[in-house]
Amino acid sequence: MKMLKDPEHQVAGHMAKDGRLGPLVDGEGRFFKPFQSNGRGEDEAKFYESFSSNKNVPDHIRGYFPVYHGTQVVETSNGSGKLPHIILDDVVFGYTNPSGMDVKIGSRTWYPGVSEQYFNQCLKNDRETTSVSLGFRHAGFKIFDHQESRFWIVEYKFVHRYKVDDARLALRKFVSSNSLADLIPDCAFASQVYGGSSGILAQLLELKAWFETQTLYHFSSCSVYMFYENESLLMKGGDGARAQVKLVDFTHVLDGNGVIDHNFLGGLSSFIKFIQDILES
Amino acid sequence: MKMLKDPEHQVAGHMAKDGRLGPLVDGEGRFFKPFQSNGRGEDEAKFYESFSSNKNVPDHIRGYFPVYHGTQVVETSNGSGKLPHIILDDVVFGYTNPSGMDVKIGSRTWYPGVSEQYFNQCLKNDRETTSVSLGFRHAGFKIFDHQESRFWIVEYKFVHRYKVDDARLALRKFVSSNSLADLIPDCAFASQVYGGSSGILAQLLELKAWFETQTLYHFSSCSVYMFYENESLLMKGGDGARAQVKLVDFTHVLDGNGVIDHNFLGGLSSFIKFIQDILES
Repeated sequence: MKMLKDPEHQVAGHMAKDGRLGPLVDGEGRFFKPFQSNGRGEDEAKFYESFSSNKNVPDHIRGYFPVYHGTQVVETSNGSGKLPHIILDDVVFGYTNPSGMDVKIGSRTWYPGVSEQYFNQCLKNDRETTSVSLGFRHAGFKIFDHQESRFWIVEYKFVHRYKVDDARLALRKFVSSNSLADLIPDCAFASQVYGGSSGILAQLLELKAWFETQTLYHFSSCSVYMFYENESLLMKGGDGARAQVKLVDFTHVLDGNGVIDHNFLGGLSSFIKFIQDILES
Repeated sequence: MKMLKDPEHQVAGHMAKDGRLGPLVDGEGRFFKPFQSNGRGEDEAKFYESFSSNKNVPDHIRGYFPVYHGTQVVETSNGSGKLPHIILDDVVFGYTNPSGMDVKIGSRTWYPGVSEQYFNQCLKNDRETTSVSLGFRHAGFKIFDHQESRFWIVEYKFVHRYKVDDARLALRKFVSSNSLADLIPDCAFASQVYGGSSGILAQLLELKAWFETQTLYHFSSCSVYMFYENESLLMKGGDGARAQVKLVDFTHVLDGNGVIDHNFLGGLSSFIKFIQDILES
């Protein structure tokens, strides 16, 4: 096996920092996510096992989930020892300068049956962030600045404090060519990234159509991860934005038991409206 | 003005009983709803004023709301004195034996900005009922029993304890010709009441399409009230079920502020899936 290394393009809450374990990549298209604590790693692996073999998931929906390649015990990112990792396709493999954004979907991250401690912690976070008001909250993003030719990384501890207007602004900055330091984002890439027959909006709408009827799973605390390539964006005849949506983070997935995931569907619908508003403005 | 009297066909939480004030009808198509306490009556009248004059509400959506005719101070239903009442169209006027069902939509009845006391009370009710798990909860219903030629009235204090399976069963019983005492509802009227181009499902889908984009109002603690006529249901050449959906109870409506009502939309979508499942089974 190739040497594993820190990924360049990870933006969400589980980056290696402050001594926490981060994911690894092998440089050949595989992404290694360390098992999270308190059984969440096992739960996430269990979900991937279930999902991979579930014949009721349509093929066009499967494409919105990272491809799963089992688990493996490897040396952790901080060299502290060995730990099981979930092996997935590295979704940004082959992208040179991808901007990425992690948005946690749902107005509620707790669910029936959790401990009172977990319930109270989730409820507090849901009320303090935009989850309750918007049905989603930012979890972090990384935007390529075309003027300064560098990335801006905005971490969870910062976006956690976002209010409604900040959330809207971040979605505009994500598809803008001017610097994040500028007050007014130009949304120069909105039509190439969000719009079009294969853009982010079209993908979100396809996902939403599935959520209107699927009763297989309830996705608590799950994120929409969206990303696109900046390198070829300004070149004529290039590959374009190659914008993609993936669902990520499945440590709290439950059986649907014949009921749709109305919490995820409501939040996703609200998020979609924000993207539509940017395209129309 | 005509003498006001107790309505025959009210099923929701605000019936006159246990000394509480109930609504009145004038027998000519008007429904008088007494102002609820703690300013809720004023809030509801304010909503009706706003909604009636809001030019951004499409005409085909306006039909899903009771027509508003202002307010008037009249003698209360229990003769205890005079109180302002909201005057609405009596939606079941002209129906002889209407079955009716009140379903409170949304997995969350609290909203940002409420007092901690109200928040805790709502959260407790949401968790104890099916609101959190299903995105809706039953608030009461009245079903005409064709075998015994009488109504079964199931009040809030009873449906409040419903679990998921009870909620599903009630939606089947609502469109069945056999007695509520029978274990297995026959769903004999499902296609006439829920189905068809103008049935309950078609109406709910039209409402849902509006909720996917409307950012005018957020409808907390609002109910879908659905009803149909039993009298003509079994007659050939009659008017059929005349099934209708109305939204009712607007004591907790907020400005949308550019955000869709994802809480209502998620719950409505879940409710729709239950109706679709009955039609498909």
